[in-house]
Amino acid sequence: MLIVKKFGGSSVADRERIFNVAARCIEDYKKGNDVVVVLSAMGKTTDGLIAKAHEITPNPSKRELDMLLTTGEQVSVALMAMAIQSMGVQAISLNAAQIPMTTTTAYGQAKLKRIDSERIRHELDSRKIVVITGFQGVNKYDDLTTLGRGGSDTTAVALAAALRADRCEIYTDVDGVYTADPRVVPNARKLSEISYDEMLEFASLGAKVLHNRSVEMAKRYNVELAVLSSLSCAEGTIVKEKTKMEKMLVSGVAVDKNTARISVLGVKDEPGIAFKLFDLLARHRINVDIIIQSIGRENQKDISFTVDRTDLDEAMALLRENMEVLTAQAVECNSAVAKISIIGAGMTSNPGVAAKMFEALSGVHINIRMIATSEIRITVLIDEEDANRAMRVVHDAFSLAE
Amino acid sequence: MLIVKKFGGSSVADRERIFNVAARCIEDYKKGNDVVVVLSAMGKTTDGLIAKAHEITPNPSKRELDMLLTTGEQVSVALMAMAIQSMGVQAISLNAAQIPMTTTTAYGQAKLKRIDSERIRHELDSRKIVVITGFQGVNKYDDLTTLGRGGSDTTAVALAAALRADRCEIYTDVDGVYTADPRVVPNARKLSEISYDEMLEFASLGAKVLHNRSVEMAKRYNVELAVLSSLSCAEGTIVKEKTKMEKMLVSGVAVDKNTARISVLGVKDEPGIAFKLFDLLARHRINVDIIIQSIGRENQKDISFTVDRTDLDEAMALLRENMEVLTAQAVECNSAVAKISIIGAGMTSNPGVAAKMFEALSGVHINIRMIATSEIRITVLIDEEDANRAMRVVHDAFSLAE
Repeated sequence: MLIVKKFGGSSVADRERIFNVAARCIEDYKKGNDVVVVLSAMGKTTDGLIAKAHEITPNPSKRELDMLLTTGEQVSVALMAMAIQSMGVQAISLNAAQIPMTTTTAYGQAKLKRIDSERIRHELDSRKIVVITGFQGVNKYDDLTTLGRGGSDTTAVALAAALRADRCEIYTDVDGVYTADPRVVPNARKLSEISYDEMLEFASLGAKVLHNRSVEMAKRYNVELAVLSSLSCAEGTIVKEKTKMEKMLVSGVAVDKNTARISVLGVKDEPGIAFKLFDLLARHRINVDIIIQSIGRENQKDISFTVDRTDLDEAMALLRENMEVLTAQAVECNSAVAKISIIGAGMTSNPGVAAKMFEALSGVHINIRMIATSEIRITVLIDEEDANRAMRVVHDAFSLAE
Repeated sequence: MLIVKKFGGSSVADRERIFNVAARCIEDYKKGNDVVVVLSAMGKTTDGLIAKAHEITPNPSKRELDMLLTTGEQVSVALMAMAIQSMGVQAISLNAAQIPMTTTTAYGQAKLKRIDSERIRHELDSRKIVVITGFQGVNKYDDLTTLGRGGSDTTAVALAAALRADRCEIYTDVDGVYTADPRVVPNARKLSEISYDEMLEFASLGAKVLHNRSVEMAKRYNVELAVLSSLSCAEGTIVKEKTKMEKMLVSGVAVDKNTARISVLGVKDEPGIAFKLFDLLARHRINVDIIIQSIGRENQKDISFTVDRTDLDEAMALLRENMEVLTAQAVECNSAVAKISIIGAGMTSNPGVAAKMFEALSGVHINIRMIATSEIRITVLIDEEDANRAMRVVHDAFSLAE
């Protein structure tokens, strides 16, 4: 069996944890498996390197920043190979250029294009554990690139696809995917299985277990993922195309506090205004999530929408500059809001789901400010101060703890 | 003009020094020159990485150690490129694999084989300052290698040769090559020029201004070196084939305390014994420097020689194991010794030079324990406690301060 195992930065933060990971890899290896290990930079290394760059300049070039950051994973893989070797098992570390893992040229947010599996196969065939740098690639200019935060998950999935691995195991701080954040909802239950689409909704809603792009890639190449804890041996959650639990309406509840609401008030009620507004934001790469538009009265209407809280200042500045073009009377915002969502592949054909959610919230006097739905998700915008309470009542309403 | 500038680790140890180096590079660039900068790892980075490896295992594999250490220079070059860019000048950092600089496979002590100048030329042609990792290379397996301590000097000289640079400037903590160590001999004088051969003798005798291999390479490819201070703008020392100062007998005095004397006593006075002894040491890569052999008496003789103090324990263990084969009665050693040398291209044809040196030493009652001479050097072994005093009297005897 060929197993790809990915460990994040906290799993290799110090000597003891490095040896813990080494022991887990050797355990699989000694059962006769081929083992590929993907690592992030140790602990807070990447943050430390970014701080060093910012000591030099507030706006380092992205090409040079990637040149700097890619050293982080190289340190991890070299030390891991040493640790495995010191335990009597052959190992070799490889960076992105040595494989090579080719990416697009977009420094800081490159996308993997092609992985050459020859060198890895060669090392596996000579019975070595192969330790590979996550998060990075090399572009057509032979320059180093990074895949963006969380990119090591994507590296692991891409390697699993390229090598046609039998398993792709993603080790994290938590031991699987839960029906809700266990720190907020004490009786949250670990899911044994979840579909790619549900996982994507979870990830995009702030349950930061897996990097979104890695799930998309796993779905595309049908790579079965196991989400496991690097600290315990507990059974994790399997992410795959079809789950056995089709009958379950709702898999979980997720909260996203990185959101803010913007209202553009009193715009003319005529065609093209909404287009102008969202085109303006799109050109500045500001993602808009939920949108509601008031019914026009006296030839005027209001448009409200949510953006990531991190984009709020830029969005507000843009809108204020363009009030005339947008025919807006005023622009307002509120960042003390949160999105709460229920996610489940089974809810499509069950119209009662949304009603049950709204009922649970109104039962504890939580105001719903906006609503959005997709095939497998219902999201409502509420006040941030209500978020944790909302999570618990919705979790209970759908009996997710059982 | 194409200028290669090399800065050591202490010259890029922090933000301020990085900007100091950036400013010096930009100064040359703005005069219309093409500028290539070679950097070592920042400050004590390499020692820190070695310590990290030793936390994992006392004997890290050399291949993985090189994978680890090469990150050090990559951090330096990325930060330097950012600093230059932030000062408004185009720059790009390149590591050994990107160039590529090909080396032999001997991890930890690889030798440069070939430098591909295409990428560097391309970047210079687009008017960028090119910042290159010193000390490292890539071998035929695409694995990273290091050139051994001080290897960044060699990288700079090799780049200067490959690019047919007009100048190769090596920046160090000192501002040139002195007639003696200025910390010991206060009136030591800076040399404006010195020949490759003299520089080689200085370097091998502990005046650690330039890495020996870099001087050998400079001599082979006739690369004129300038040894300069990274802290001041003082005129440095030029190292080249022929110096203007042929008439000067002696260029300087150097002391080497990394030495120890071993005496193998009472060996049979018959052919082949000395060969056995030195062959044994050579097979264990222990360098032998000065050798003296007593005149045989009663079919016995004594052989004494010096080794690097760092090799002493290994050499003594080897000799004790092989006393029978070597027909030795006893093996003794003394590590409280030092080598003091005078170096000068002009001394070959001047038999009075040695006499003057010995006279100066005996005048202050310093015992000479062994003597060795080469074309441009006379070395004597003395007690370590006399070393600094010896340096001063010899420096005075040859009027080197004038």
